Amino acid sequence: MPAPTQIDMRSDTLSLLTPEMRKAMAEAEVGDDLYGGDPTTGRLEQHCAELFGKEAALFTTSGTLSNQLALRVHTAPGDEIITDTKYHINFYESAASAGLAGVALNTVDSPDGVLTPELLRFALQRKKRAPQCSAPALVCLENTVNFHSGRVVSLDSLRALRHDTLTAGLATHIDGARLANASVASGSSLAEFADTADTVSMCFAKGLAAPFGSILVGPADLIEKAAAHRMSYGGGMHQSGVVAAAALYALQHNVERMTEDHHHARLLCKLLSDHPAFGVEPDTVQTNILVVDVSSTGLSAAAFVRAAADKGVLLAEWTATSFRAVTRLGLDETAIRTVAERLLALADQVKGSAAA
Amino acid sequence: MPAPTQIDMRSDTLSLLTPEMRKAMAEAEVGDDLYGGDPTTGRLEQHCAELFGKEAALFTTSGTLSNQLALRVHTAPGDEIITDTKYHINFYESAASAGLAGVALNTVDSPDGVLTPELLRFALQRKKRAPQCSAPALVCLENTVNFHSGRVVSLDSLRALRHDTLTAGLATHIDGARLANASVASGSSLAEFADTADTVSMCFAKGLAAPFGSILVGPADLIEKAAAHRMSYGGGMHQSGVVAAAALYALQHNVERMTEDHHHARLLCKLLSDHPAFGVEPDTVQTNILVVDVSSTGLSAAAFVRAAADKGVLLAEWTATSFRAVTRLGLDETAIRTVAERLLALADQVKGSAAA
Amino acid sequence: MPAPTQIDMRSDTLSLLTPEMRKAMAEAEVGDDLYGGDPTTGRLEQHCAELFGKEAALFTTSGTLSNQLALRVHTAPGDEIITDTKYHINFYESAASAGLAGVALNTVDSPDGVLTPELLRFALQRKKRAPQCSAPALVCLENTVNFHSGRVVSLDSLRALRHDTLTAGLATHIDGARLANASVASGSSLAEFADTADTVSMCFAKGLAAPFGSILVGPADLIEKAAAHRMSYGGGMHQSGVVAAAALYALQHNVERMTEDHHHARLLCKLLSDHPAFGVEPDTVQTNILVVDVSSTGLSAAAFVRAAADKGVLLAEWTATSFRAVTRLGLDETAIRTVAERLLALADQVKGSAAA
Amino acid sequence: MPAPTQIDMRSDTLSLLTPEMRKAMAEAEVGDDLYGGDPTTGRLEQHCAELFGKEAALFTTSGTLSNQLALRVHTAPGDEIITDTKYHINFYESAASAGLAGVALNTVDSPDGVLTPELLRFALQRKKRAPQCSAPALVCLENTVNFHSGRVVSLDSLRALRHDTLTAGLATHIDGARLANASVASGSSLAEFADTADTVSMCFAKGLAAPFGSILVGPADLIEKAAAHRMSYGGGMHQSGVVAAAALYALQHNVERMTEDHHHARLLCKLLSDHPAFGVEPDTVQTNILVVDVSSTGLSAAAFVRAAADKGVLLAEWTATSFRAVTRLGLDETAIRTVAERLLALADQVKGSAAA
Repeated sequence: MPAPTQIDMRSDTLSLLTPEMRKAMAEAEVGDDLYGGDPTTGRLEQHCAELFGKEAALFTTSGTLSNQLALRVHTAPGDEIITDTKYHINFYESAASAGLAGVALNTVDSPDGVLTPELLRFALQRKKRAPQCSAPALVCLENTVNFHSGRVVSLDSLRALRHDTLTAGLATHIDGARLANASVASGSSLAEFADTADTVSMCFAKGLAAPFGSILVGPADLIEKAAAHRMSYGGGMHQSGVVAAAALYALQHNVERMTEDHHHARLLCKLLSDHPAFGVEPDTVQTNILVVDVSSTGLSAAAFVRAAADKGVLLAEWTATSFRAVTRLGLDETAIRTVAERLLALADQVKGSAAA
Repeated sequence: MPAPTQIDMRSDTLSLLTPEMRKAMAEAEVGDDLYGGDPTTGRLEQHCAELFGKEAALFTTSGTLSNQLALRVHTAPGDEIITDTKYHINFYESAASAGLAGVALNTVDSPDGVLTPELLRFALQRKKRAPQCSAPALVCLENTVNFHSGRVVSLDSLRALRHDTLTAGLATHIDGARLANASVASGSSLAEFADTADTVSMCFAKGLAAPFGSILVGPADLIEKAAAHRMSYGGGMHQSGVVAAAALYALQHNVERMTEDHHHARLLCKLLSDHPAFGVEPDTVQTNILVVDVSSTGLSAAAFVRAAADKGVLLAEWTATSFRAVTRLGLDETAIRTVAERLLALADQVKGSAAA
Repeated sequence: MPAPTQIDMRSDTLSLLTPEMRKAMAEAEVGDDLYGGDPTTGRLEQHCAELFGKEAALFTTSGTLSNQLALRVHTAPGDEIITDTKYHINFYESAASAGLAGVALNTVDSPDGVLTPELLRFALQRKKRAPQCSAPALVCLENTVNFHSGRVVSLDSLRALRHDTLTAGLATHIDGARLANASVASGSSLAEFADTADTVSMCFAKGLAAPFGSILVGPADLIEKAAAHRMSYGGGMHQSGVVAAAALYALQHNVERMTEDHHHARLLCKLLSDHPAFGVEPDTVQTNILVVDVSSTGLSAAAFVRAAADKGVLLAEWTATSFRAVTRLGLDETAIRTVAERLLALADQVKGSAAA
Repeated sequence: MPAPTQIDMRSDTLSLLTPEMRKAMAEAEVGDDLYGGDPTTGRLEQHCAELFGKEAALFTTSGTLSNQLALRVHTAPGDEIITDTKYHINFYESAASAGLAGVALNTVDSPDGVLTPELLRFALQRKKRAPQCSAPALVCLENTVNFHSGRVVSLDSLRALRHDTLTAGLATHIDGARLANASVASGSSLAEFADTADTVSMCFAKGLAAPFGSILVGPADLIEKAAAHRMSYGGGMHQSGVVAAAALYALQHNVERMTEDHHHARLLCKLLSDHPAFGVEPDTVQTNILVVDVSSTGLSAAAFVRAAADKGVLLAEWTATSFRAVTRLGLDETAIRTVAERLLALADQVKGSAAA
């Protein structure tokens, strides 16, 4: 029996270039972005500034770069960023945040990925503000919250927090790697979300399906500083238009289609939720990410992920007892149903072997 | 009526030089520590190395410097230190730890200031160990635990943790600013404590009552590196012997007398604990620090501390609802009883005014 | 009279994408380089490792990123890099080198851009090697030397220096942004050059005419470390294959054609050298860069560059008294002769106006 | 024959505590400088602020710390400091300057240790001021110039440079470790020198003969920031008054006596200058430092210094061909004449052996 074709649900960065996007890239008008400007990159930045309702935008290589540049323009070494332990800025990027920007990450462990005014107060008060203690300068949020099943942090929640951060004299950056998902799922616009922060980053390589790249938006003076720092971080790209063209195409064609990804995530959740092996609450799936607890299988997440790969489903090991599955361009309903079948079969098999 | 003489219980760094210590300093044999050696400093370092059972020791200006040098020899920028949110390295020193050493502080909120193997595992697993994520390199402990009423972390507890940190390939540094208190209170020797870590710092300006200074002990190669970093941090002192003489005197004369400080702290605790205004558990006072909750007075800690100052007692505002009082050389039993009287009178007065 | 079409000689990064390269990019096989690999990027890195005779290679966004990653794998903060004041690592990148990597740049002012054993000895001895003084760890070279008219540093010269750096225990990195030019001009292979260093970077966006990107080659362990640092610098690119395809195409089709660029640079040099307004020595033009002194025109470099732009020639202001002109793909002999005509006419005009 | 008593001329930090200074220290009024203030330290800082004509002053452990704190308040990581290769900030402290403050040192090689307006212009123009290039923020001077025989940089020279640095928007810090020597030798007051800079540091452990310590003076807002940074660098000293008392004593009793040190340096210079073995120009000795070339002896500086030690004279190896000798408190005319005799005898002996 031939091995089943693998279906890769590890990340939404895994969608491949479509012919239409390749065409847009191949026809891109380009110039040297570091010598007077690349016209396509210029159009992308202009478009994003308008989309987010901010003065200026900067095209960067990656979400990490956008976030790290935001840190640089909002802080100095020794300053403090209040964030959630599970947000990307800490969960994935702490070597960069501490080692390059020299900032102290004051992280709170929210139960659901939402940084509330109460948690903010807790964070502000949990240190002795001595001269050699970090000074809070920035609150870094994330939306959607990757760790917590792609949860959307609501506009109301963001606005309540913004009131308190402004009172406390703190700037706000939103790591909006998947903010387009949050916008499509909630009906709130990117500009409405961006209005609750000083700077916002968004990735083009996730649900938007571009090959790579990210945008950082904010006030003109901060974006200008970010552009200078981008050069120091090695993020200058000469004819960036070839990649910017894909991002522009994605913004024009791939935003609305995210509703399909969200539908697929809920479908997969529903299909798995009936099986006792899978710990998953249907209500929590709001966008394109599904985190599933496999404790009841008796397997560790690592073991379950390996077993699933043997069955033709690639999943991301998430915590010690859960996996992450992400829907995206390239995975249609048939693929999702096939994934469900394979995982349910695996669950039955594991259960059987555990019972034996 | 004249204002009462103020009794200062804010910190044990506030003890003043005694005539005997001044004499020891005035007679110190000195040389240039940066040009071939200061003999008194050499003796102090040799004595401390033996006392802690380590290969080498380095005299430094402050506990912060000892700790920061320890960070430098155990880590590189982008590395991670696992510690408690309330330990000095984070609670007071996070600007230095992040801004100078570039390390990410992965802090856990232990309920009692004791970093357990369970908390260690939690800390190790709570991040995605991606390439841009910090790599755990060091566990930084504190003993006694300043924030938690000067609690002694027991040898058994340290040994259990050491087993797990060694398994995980992590080095251990103990911020033992008040390790002499821990030793006197527990009967465990400094060497026994030091045997559970790679490097240990201890302050001379707290219960030991020297004017300032700290020691860092550890393996010879690390102490040599620390000595080089000390120069970069501006911690080179030419004729340091004049201060080292005070530290040597303190080690010879002021260790055993800490039992008095501990007795005084328990006495104050007992005297206050009967009054309903004061939230304090007698059992928790193990050394020279007393943290007292004043929520029941209806006053904030800040307001209570101000009112106490008016009554002639200086306390440290600790959390939003508690104050810290520290016993030390220079505060005898009479002073402690006077403090208790004044605070009890204040509590009565506040209660009366609240009831009115 | 219509304005003349502008001919842009400011940099060789200004060549635009050709249809063939666009086609190669549009047809690139891609994957997620951060999730198991992008096949085209893999092929590029494999090809470059072989081309340079090194164990491994890493595709990066820019020459600055390749250089900065090299710094990170060779040094720690407080270490020292010996280099020439005019090399890119200092001349353009000193904010990154000092501000991110924390290294001290010990720069020598060579007369011709060649770092000799004598200059190395001078650099090693010109500081007091105290504990708080930087420790020399790396020598950073450049080939060709941008500042000095694209001079080729010969294999013999590199080998002589390598002998001394190895004796001194120093690693060597070559910023070979234009090493392909050096190879074509000298007949020495990339591997021969790379054999005189531990790590080498080369840009694809200059004479090789790709849109952007750079390669870093070296020992496998260092390249692995560089890949991790690349993530912290925000240089991770998911489907990087689309850009790597251009680099691969460039290595296959655009290396030999650099001889034309070099021919054009010598031609322009010859055409200008007869006019007394231009200070240029024909012998120094070895590759595709021409630096021309305009002191004799009575104009500053800034004024001359502005005047040339009005005449339809874009030049880079280089020093206070010289401009830089760079030949590249897209500038044929006719363009070069037109540039010469316009600049000679300008020189006559300026001279006339100065005489008047 | 017994070995001669060694006379140590390696540094002016080697003067030992006098009974009078010990007495001043033993009687110092102290308090906790980090808890409301140490009265003696307060008096020292107040006195220094007045002496230098600046708003505020900060007592620190060392000249390196004062300098590094000055860097921090004048710059951000990635900024550039223009200085002389031979000034302490680079010559000794480059690991701190680059590794902790993250600043790029743009060093010029002045022939005589005087940073002129021409050298400043040269420094400003020798880099491409690209976004990833360091931005000049501070000029760091030194007076007297240790490397260049303790040369005094004149007020006129400082004023001329100050005009140009202000025009260029650059702040100025003077490393005045031996500025008291400059003042005594030139007749210009400390305040006159300080008026040509924003911040100035001065050491108490050199000619002033205190055990250790330094002062940093400048505008109140910068000194306040420096005080906070001092805590991060581990430079907080609780009862610093015991050391500050020595500094105060030194300022009151040891300034004028520096004329003796200067006289002794000139005397030694004169005694050595007649001998052909010693390359020394009498006119250059302005303060308490003598740099002597020993090339004519046929010995390296290292060998000469070793030979001198055998004769009972300790010298500092300075360059590969010269030694440094420093006069100070504790070395009277007899000592200086003895040193001269021993060195002349050594020179004769070496010459004889070379001739044989």
